[in-house]
Amino acid sequence: MTKITFDITTSLDGYVAGPNQSVDEPLGEGGEALHEWAFALEAWRKPHGREGGETTASSALMEEGLARTGAVVMGRKMFGGGGTGPWGDEPWEGWWGDDPPFHVPVFVVTHHPREKLEKEGGTTFTFVTDGIKAAVEQARSAAGGKDVSIGGGADVIQQALRAGLVDEFQVNVAPVLLGSGTSLFGEVGTGELAVEPTGVVEAPAVTHLRYRVVK
Amino acid sequence: MTKITFDITTSLDGYVAGPNQSVDEPLGEGGEALHEWAFALEAWRKPHGREGGETTASSALMEEGLARTGAVVMGRKMFGGGGTGPWGDEPWEGWWGDDPPFHVPVFVVTHHPREKLEKEGGTTFTFVTDGIKAAVEQARSAAGGKDVSIGGGADVIQQALRAGLVDEFQVNVAPVLLGSGTSLFGEVGTGELAVEPTGVVEAPAVTHLRYRVVK
Repeated sequence: MTKITFDITTSLDGYVAGPNQSVDEPLGEGGEALHEWAFALEAWRKPHGREGGETTASSALMEEGLARTGAVVMGRKMFGGGGTGPWGDEPWEGWWGDDPPFHVPVFVVTHHPREKLEKEGGTTFTFVTDGIKAAVEQARSAAGGKDVSIGGGADVIQQALRAGLVDEFQVNVAPVLLGSGTSLFGEVGTGELAVEPTGVVEAPAVTHLRYRVVK
Repeated sequence: MTKITFDITTSLDGYVAGPNQSVDEPLGEGGEALHEWAFALEAWRKPHGREGGETTASSALMEEGLARTGAVVMGRKMFGGGGTGPWGDEPWEGWWGDDPPFHVPVFVVTHHPREKLEKEGGTTFTFVTDGIKAAVEQARSAAGGKDVSIGGGADVIQQALRAGLVDEFQVNVAPVLLGSGTSLFGEVGTGELAVEPTGVVEAPAVTHLRYRVVK
């Protein structure tokens, strides 16, 4: 059965990106440090076309996550712009190059209607203009019984949490304090969402915390 | 050798108390839920004069923490007021009753000079008016080679982190989202503080994350 999930890295103080995000620093000041644990892994480097890398307790989690994912939902900024917006006015092809690392259908939540974009390696980008719920439903249909992973950013994850769409999630806590930036959970509160822990995996430079949403 | 530590419970979104703290709700709206894991433990109930309770993986951590602690530093609000302040104008004896659960010297960081207060069971409250560094140094002298635990609140912990006083800490992550409130780390950022994980303990309704400050 398809589950709706997300898997995202935060700082110890709960930010998915540092302050002052820009084209030069899409993860904000200090934000790259969040992902050092992933950049070091063969399980991350190989699908991103890079050589080398190590194998840690994070590797199996990452590989299982990829194998389980049949479709991805993301926001416009994570895609890389939708024609206009904070990253400039060009009709971008996104951050992800000709052969994006997803290899599944991706549904981009945006206000800008746009033709579907087909990339190499099985990744397609479909632009959904009628909200998070519609994007998740389209992704569920496309996932072929596998899971739908909500890639981010935080605003899209918060919309999905508030809409009661998420079944399970994993927060990868990096040993970094950013002090300010983009908060993963924002103002989503307990009145809106009850969660219970389902497991913890300790790995070098990251702690993976897994939760289930209580429905 | 005496280490300067803290051990505090936060929500999954990083708050040590919910919004709208008051005399009736000192932990703010929803904040009591942070501590359900502790209230359920015999290791918490016994020193707080309550019967019953369970034993979990958290119990040994709590008992070791108490055994290691030779002195405590806390802020005025955690003490319970210092004569005047947000909790009213009475010259309070604090939140903690005649036999507080500390059983060691406690140093209260405050702007209000006041005579030392002696309680039953070995707890004394000494009021320190010249800042966090002085309070930690007095606590270190009083700790008899054991550790100094900074009890809170978040503002006092942030002052200690910024002053480079903290050696190790433990964040107990409760499976609760508060949405707003008092942030543990506030604006303390990476430029000010580097940390590395030293261990994780999984227990019912809480995940204990342990860190060392890299000096």
